[in-house]
Amino acid sequence: MSDRKQFRDLATPAEAHEAIASLNLDPEPETVPLAEARGRILAERVDAELDVPGFDRASMDGYAVRAADTFGADEANPATLTDVGTVHAGSEPDVFVDDGECAEISTGAVLPDGADAVVMIEKTDEVADSDAVEIRTSLAPGDHVMPAGADIAAGQRALGPGTELTPREIGLLSALGKDELRVRGKPTVGIVSTGDELVRPGEELNSDAGQIYDVNSYTIAAGVEEAGGVAKLYPHAGDSMAAMEETLTTAADECDLVLSSGSTSASAVDVVYKVIEERGELLLHGVSVKPGKPMLIGRLEESAYVGLPGYPVSALTIFRTFVAPAIRGAAGVPEPRTATVEGTLAQEERYSEGRTRMMPVGLVEDESGETLVYPVDKGSGATTSLVEADGVVEVDADTEYLAAGESVTVTLFSPSVRTPALLALGEEDPAFARLLDRLRSSRFLPVGSREGLRRLRDGLPDVAVVAGPTRREVDSVELGSWEREWGLLVPEGNPDAIDGFGDLVDADLRLVNMDSQTGLRASVDAELDRLAAARDVDAREFQGRIDGYEFTLKAHESPARRVLSGKADAGVGLRATAERLGLTFVPVGTQTVRVRANPNRVEKAGVADLKAVLTAIEDVLTVLPGYSA
Amino acid sequence: MSDRKQFRDLATPAEAHEAIASLNLDPEPETVPLAEARGRILAERVDAELDVPGFDRASMDGYAVRAADTFGADEANPATLTDVGTVHAGSEPDVFVDDGECAEISTGAVLPDGADAVVMIEKTDEVADSDAVEIRTSLAPGDHVMPAGADIAAGQRALGPGTELTPREIGLLSALGKDELRVRGKPTVGIVSTGDELVRPGEELNSDAGQIYDVNSYTIAAGVEEAGGVAKLYPHAGDSMAAMEETLTTAADECDLVLSSGSTSASAVDVVYKVIEERGELLLHGVSVKPGKPMLIGRLEESAYVGLPGYPVSALTIFRTFVAPAIRGAAGVPEPRTATVEGTLAQEERYSEGRTRMMPVGLVEDESGETLVYPVDKGSGATTSLVEADGVVEVDADTEYLAAGESVTVTLFSPSVRTPALLALGEEDPAFARLLDRLRSSRFLPVGSREGLRRLRDGLPDVAVVAGPTRREVDSVELGSWEREWGLLVPEGNPDAIDGFGDLVDADLRLVNMDSQTGLRASVDAELDRLAAARDVDAREFQGRIDGYEFTLKAHESPARRVLSGKADAGVGLRATAERLGLTFVPVGTQTVRVRANPNRVEKAGVADLKAVLTAIEDVLTVLPGYSA
Repeated sequence: MSDRKQFRDLATPAEAHEAIASLNLDPEPETVPLAEARGRILAERVDAELDVPGFDRASMDGYAVRAADTFGADEANPATLTDVGTVHAGSEPDVFVDDGECAEISTGAVLPDGADAVVMIEKTDEVADSDAVEIRTSLAPGDHVMPAGADIAAGQRALGPGTELTPREIGLLSALGKDELRVRGKPTVGIVSTGDELVRPGEELNSDAGQIYDVNSYTIAAGVEEAGGVAKLYPHAGDSMAAMEETLTTAADECDLVLSSGSTSASAVDVVYKVIEERGELLLHGVSVKPGKPMLIGRLEESAYVGLPGYPVSALTIFRTFVAPAIRGAAGVPEPRTATVEGTLAQEERYSEGRTRMMPVGLVEDESGETLVYPVDKGSGATTSLVEADGVVEVDADTEYLAAGESVTVTLFSPSVRTPALLALGEEDPAFARLLDRLRSSRFLPVGSREGLRRLRDGLPDVAVVAGPTRREVDSVELGSWEREWGLLVPEGNPDAIDGFGDLVDADLRLVNMDSQTGLRASVDAELDRLAAARDVDAREFQGRIDGYEFTLKAHESPARRVLSGKADAGVGLRATAERLGLTFVPVGTQTVRVRANPNRVEKAGVADLKAVLTAIEDVLTVLPGYSA
Repeated sequence: MSDRKQFRDLATPAEAHEAIASLNLDPEPETVPLAEARGRILAERVDAELDVPGFDRASMDGYAVRAADTFGADEANPATLTDVGTVHAGSEPDVFVDDGECAEISTGAVLPDGADAVVMIEKTDEVADSDAVEIRTSLAPGDHVMPAGADIAAGQRALGPGTELTPREIGLLSALGKDELRVRGKPTVGIVSTGDELVRPGEELNSDAGQIYDVNSYTIAAGVEEAGGVAKLYPHAGDSMAAMEETLTTAADECDLVLSSGSTSASAVDVVYKVIEERGELLLHGVSVKPGKPMLIGRLEESAYVGLPGYPVSALTIFRTFVAPAIRGAAGVPEPRTATVEGTLAQEERYSEGRTRMMPVGLVEDESGETLVYPVDKGSGATTSLVEADGVVEVDADTEYLAAGESVTVTLFSPSVRTPALLALGEEDPAFARLLDRLRSSRFLPVGSREGLRRLRDGLPDVAVVAGPTRREVDSVELGSWEREWGLLVPEGNPDAIDGFGDLVDADLRLVNMDSQTGLRASVDAELDRLAAARDVDAREFQGRIDGYEFTLKAHESPARRVLSGKADAGVGLRATAERLGLTFVPVGTQTVRVRANPNRVEKAGVADLKAVLTAIEDVLTVLPGYSA
């Protein structure tokens, strides 16, 4: 660190916004054909260069006349004129309408010279066997004629610079005959991935060597495109100084803005830091914001540069808060109205780190249509926070306490993020997952039965999925229930001839248990209590005699997969999982899975939809081994 | 009409929705690479097929240890362990941590076998000149370790079918290593233009022959893309039965849905009608809705078919109301939250045609942030209604009266339509237009000074631009003003030696006057009053002695352009216009242009922005001939 430029204090978020605003990422305007102009922003004003319509246009089917010839005409005393010809839409009139004359004309046709009004066909009669036409009404000059330029006239300002081109503007531009437009350019944003441990999705992953998939590159690229930029991904060339310098300077050469992103490793970040210092200028290092402290802002050769934090939620939050507005500004694309949502905090929140906090939150609509906002804190390293949260609430550095019910503004991760129609949480269950597949929009948080019930009591979710024995009494409405068979999952053929939990006690066999929040675990403990009582031993002590009783995993298939990989001899799980993964199932019991709804939200649309799909639960249960109604 | 299938009654809007819903426009799912997945809709559920992380991952820089070895350790009594090696992020551990041992480890690295916890570097000390490390804290198994699958575990449901892929979902899919996804297909929508009078933008227009630019094709194509479809424009092959049949059946063959659109001419519509009857099936002809009555819904060979009305506002309204939802449904793209806006009606509205009315409306925000909704009725033929209105209010067939202040829901022409930041109306003025170019978002309606003042009095606009003498007293705040020189614009060189209005009286010279709502016209009338008084004649009679006094146009450059085209000898206008168009200017006077704000809205952001740009009015005036402060 000693050779680094010194930044004594962390910058404030406002200073970070200013630093980014001081960078120039404005692209040159470009010319696009009308057919590709949707969503683009006009770079310059468009004036009408012609009259629309370009001619005096009949707006009715009828006869072109001189209004003066119809003076005093009515049903009783029609004026009689001589029909001298016909004018069709899309053709040049070959008649002149003189005093006492008229010409048949269709809607959209050019008013012939001499005429100054159109009488609608319903107010006329052809006189049999003659060229005479009776006009049964009086007209004023201009009646049923749209004069040239009446819609928009040459010289009028049609659209201003900065106008976003939606279908309707495309319509006006079509009417003006514009087939090419000068529009704001899209800033090109290079994304340079750092961290030798990162592998691009689709490539082979070596987990034993600590490799992980590169999450930030595609995420940020999607964010760049959403903000109106063009994303350019650079292949990872390695974290060595030479490789990084090569990649970063190439990106700077080709892009308006370079973002580096990916690694949480200190050495990779150090290398990037050095390149920026040598080939550019660092304006700011470190911002007093959580998450996102290690942000870098500067210039790299002729390009703007921002270094994003490595953890995906941090990277997306910092991108969304600081970088996306700058890209929108350069692209001239205004922030969509859906970028933020107002809501009330569902629970109190304490915080006292003295930094601005970007608190990831989820959204749920309560019974009165109000948006409830709840913190999602799985730690910055969790990529699932990306989809379990909907956005962030910015909490000031000096706010130490937010009360439940407080109004907050949520900046959504993306303007197209929507509040899920249903928030369910609790026990993971394959049957319930299949029900969710039939719903339009839902969120399920696999927090286990116990935590599910607790949060149902606190009024957060619409429904909780609860399996196995429970102690807590929570007011709820049961929407449906089914049975599932659970037990021990062992290697195919059951090499250790395990017949139940009794065989694991004091044995040289390693169990993988389920997390204590799960209903599967509640059933395991009930079974062990039963066995201990039968043997007349202390239940606690009995549990301790099973190797691995304390080794627990949260996901319902995880113990099974440990067995499959040879790292354990038995895992707690479902018959359905055993059959799916090709393990042998040692049945222990069945447990009931109940879908319990918040009693105030039974009428909510998302809950009603769930009730509707629950009527087809039999279809779901028949395809799952070990399941029954 | 005799050979047409009979539809006795117009269908209701609900029946039209049902008829479209009965058509099948669902495309097949397709596979897209992750990098192109943004905005697409998952066709099927995605489960995790691997654990994330894929290994027990150190979440701190420090030492991997056996927690049991640190039992009881604290600052005063550190535990001393032997350092047996180092594990870096992204590489496979080559050490085993046995009792009494530890291994240096960096954030993100694989926890080596034997170890079950990580102690952070700050709680350790290397013992000089030895392999010993002092651990100054006690640890529990799992401390500072993110176990494999803790983020998301193999077998867990990651994303459900129907999920829209925003950056955050792209992030989770990246973490799962998915580089290809099955997504909903986009329905292909063919757009067939009808009407021999229509010319594509960019092509030569023959106005004398009644040609107009084809507005609907590109407008509806943009609407199709916005709704999640793929638009395919078919070149216009002519309105003959054979040509239309060829185009329509080709489109039906290549597309999920065919839209015909363009002409208002009865004969072109008739031809389309016949093709649908012969090569498909007509489900519905005519809907009881204004505008849009002539809608057709049916099948054309294997494809769905909808015939849109010819006028652009009608076509877009019917597309938006009936067709876009069907395209969204087929694409699986939900209607954006911004598709509608709630507001209150700014003025009462009477209506009694017995059909559902789609009333085009504009939006303006009032002083309290409320959205005011005002009808825009320029007639269906006006393309400028597309940009002067923001959407439509659906008024029931049996609603005859809507009171001012009534709550209404506006379906925007497009979800990205926004309420303009500033609504200005009144006199067209080149200086004011240049000021608007410096604003972010504004709407100007060129209704003339008189109508501008009237509507300012009624509380609709933010500002009115008023030029020339006025009679009406309206409470307002003047934001700025300037002078402009006006007079008569005559052919270059002034061949008729016109020196003022006096020369037009009883002369064989044709004038083009300005519309009676304009301030230019008010100045013309004041000048004629002065001349009449000087000659001691009646002002009215005096006006009548000028040929063309009654021939008025609305747009400020239009009289000048009539002179330029040789159709008139003199036109009312500005010196600025004369110089721009190369005409000779005969000065008559100067008039003041005033920007007058609604006194309640001076603080509104859009008005404040206008005030800010008004400080630079001098810059604008210097480039406009005949303008002064």
